[in-house]
Amino acid sequence: MIKKKQKYTVSAPGSLMLFGEHAVLHGKPALVSAIDKRITVELLTRDDDEINLHSTLSGTQSLQLQDIAPDLWRSLPKWHFVLASITFYQKHLPSGFDLKVTADYDAPIGLGSSAAVTVATLAALTLWLDKKGLMQQSLLRHTVQVIREVQGIASGADAAASVYGGVIAYHMPTLKVTKLANTYPLTVIYSGQKIATQSVLEHVSTLQQRHDQVFAHLYAAIAACTHEAKQAWQISDWQAVGELMNIHQGLHDALGVNTQKLVDLIFALRSDPKIFGAKISGAGMGDCVIGLGKADIKELIETISAKNSQAQLIPVQISSQGVAVIEN
Amino acid sequence: MIKKKQKYTVSAPGSLMLFGEHAVLHGKPALVSAIDKRITVELLTRDDDEINLHSTLSGTQSLQLQDIAPDLWRSLPKWHFVLASITFYQKHLPSGFDLKVTADYDAPIGLGSSAAVTVATLAALTLWLDKKGLMQQSLLRHTVQVIREVQGIASGADAAASVYGGVIAYHMPTLKVTKLANTYPLTVIYSGQKIATQSVLEHVSTLQQRHDQVFAHLYAAIAACTHEAKQAWQISDWQAVGELMNIHQGLHDALGVNTQKLVDLIFALRSDPKIFGAKISGAGMGDCVIGLGKADIKELIETISAKNSQAQLIPVQISSQGVAVIEN
Repeated sequence: MIKKKQKYTVSAPGSLMLFGEHAVLHGKPALVSAIDKRITVELLTRDDDEINLHSTLSGTQSLQLQDIAPDLWRSLPKWHFVLASITFYQKHLPSGFDLKVTADYDAPIGLGSSAAVTVATLAALTLWLDKKGLMQQSLLRHTVQVIREVQGIASGADAAASVYGGVIAYHMPTLKVTKLANTYPLTVIYSGQKIATQSVLEHVSTLQQRHDQVFAHLYAAIAACTHEAKQAWQISDWQAVGELMNIHQGLHDALGVNTQKLVDLIFALRSDPKIFGAKISGAGMGDCVIGLGKADIKELIETISAKNSQAQLIPVQISSQGVAVIEN
Repeated sequence: MIKKKQKYTVSAPGSLMLFGEHAVLHGKPALVSAIDKRITVELLTRDDDEINLHSTLSGTQSLQLQDIAPDLWRSLPKWHFVLASITFYQKHLPSGFDLKVTADYDAPIGLGSSAAVTVATLAALTLWLDKKGLMQQSLLRHTVQVIREVQGIASGADAAASVYGGVIAYHMPTLKVTKLANTYPLTVIYSGQKIATQSVLEHVSTLQQRHDQVFAHLYAAIAACTHEAKQAWQISDWQAVGELMNIHQGLHDALGVNTQKLVDLIFALRSDPKIFGAKISGAGMGDCVIGLGKADIKELIETISAKNSQAQLIPVQISSQGVAVIEN
């Protein structure tokens, strides 16, 4: 019997942290947004045991079905999340397959690409192997499990935005997701500084161990900020959201993850009258800063390029679309 | 009968806020240091009713004993604190006097000059009029009363350091002062930005009214920072004190009182390996930043002058001497 080749195409959005970074790992709420940059995974089943991986981010890799084993992902750093996702379904794989990953954007800039590729890969595999179809909450649970296997510590906030789309409130201990209505333009700048989230978390953890009482207060303050921002977001009080972003930025700074480059970009954003507030997005010490509002791009580019030749404006916006099945 | 002229000379140190700014106004603790820049007040009694004021900061002013009345200080801005101090003793003044104020430093740079001149003026008047002599705690109480009459809101933390000298922990509601042992070099830079403390407080108050829950957490975090810093200071754990200064700086930023100029100076200080930590000193939005440790001055001047031509290093250090009677 010749089996018909099956094709599953799924895309998942990248994401931007808006509120609650670091504190989310201590059980506090976070606000995260899906963005209009997506990662698409195309899974084509094969009649043999070959697994061919191709990615616009990581190149090409071939292996055999029998190679799939726990910890295989450790030996192929560029394929961490894809391989850990495949391993998640190891016992259920009936044959090999071709898997093609296409990203709308460059991974080094961050924007939750690891979570997005994990969501899309797991979703494609789920469509193939688990005929019950995609359930958002179990997809999120599996994604967080896979990301934690690779990264150790991970909040899953980015994965939650990739799965659900739009702006969401997220609570790590329960994986609870609340979708928020409303959207607003963002201005996003990549700092030119790339740093692994894990090393930022280690840096924060070291400081926290020396000042645990103070850090408990910082996380409580971030939680209060996030809670207020959620309420303000839902009533479109953008001035309040912007002010809370500015406050949150100070708390990021207090956690020890601010840099001269990031702060220069943040003050540049704040100098634009259309920007309500600005902060680091994500763990800090590099990656992106975000401003709430649509800045005067020409003027902003002049301001930032005078201080940081590596900084670049990233044309991304909030997107309501979460993980999406394109072909099934 | 010809009365012998009496002369009373008192000096009081300026001060630098180390920890607890803003939160101190909400009943949280502060750490403040007296510095080795002082204001000296020389009071020479007269046989007539003339009051002649002379100050290296404010020039010259003459008035009559009968001119002294509540609110007189309002009409002579340059003499606010001196006149409010004299009015404090209005009913007890038996004659006129010459009063000469000499400052070791330029008042615009801040450094608690208003509190120091009030402490020294009240102390000189007390020596003359209240034969019981100087009691530190009542001098502090009177000073805070006079400063509040002029300024409205005032923590009195700077006055407490001027009275007691050295590094002190201060609690506004009770005016309680605890002297801390130990000292360490500071590096102090004036930002070139001058802003009245009152307008900074108004700015913070406006933001606080819109985000009172978040601000309660910020003040609690500042209090935790100050509490830990007090303990670290007493065991000479300068690394911990420096880290807590960095954390406090983030909280200053969260309160909305940071500026690009201040943050540039702070990152310049932190780039020096001998600096354990750096932060705004005082209300913020201008005035001074402090680093814990003795920076490489030559290199620091090069770094900061490239970014801010108005910034200047202020050669001040912690001083253990509080208010002091020089001539009685």
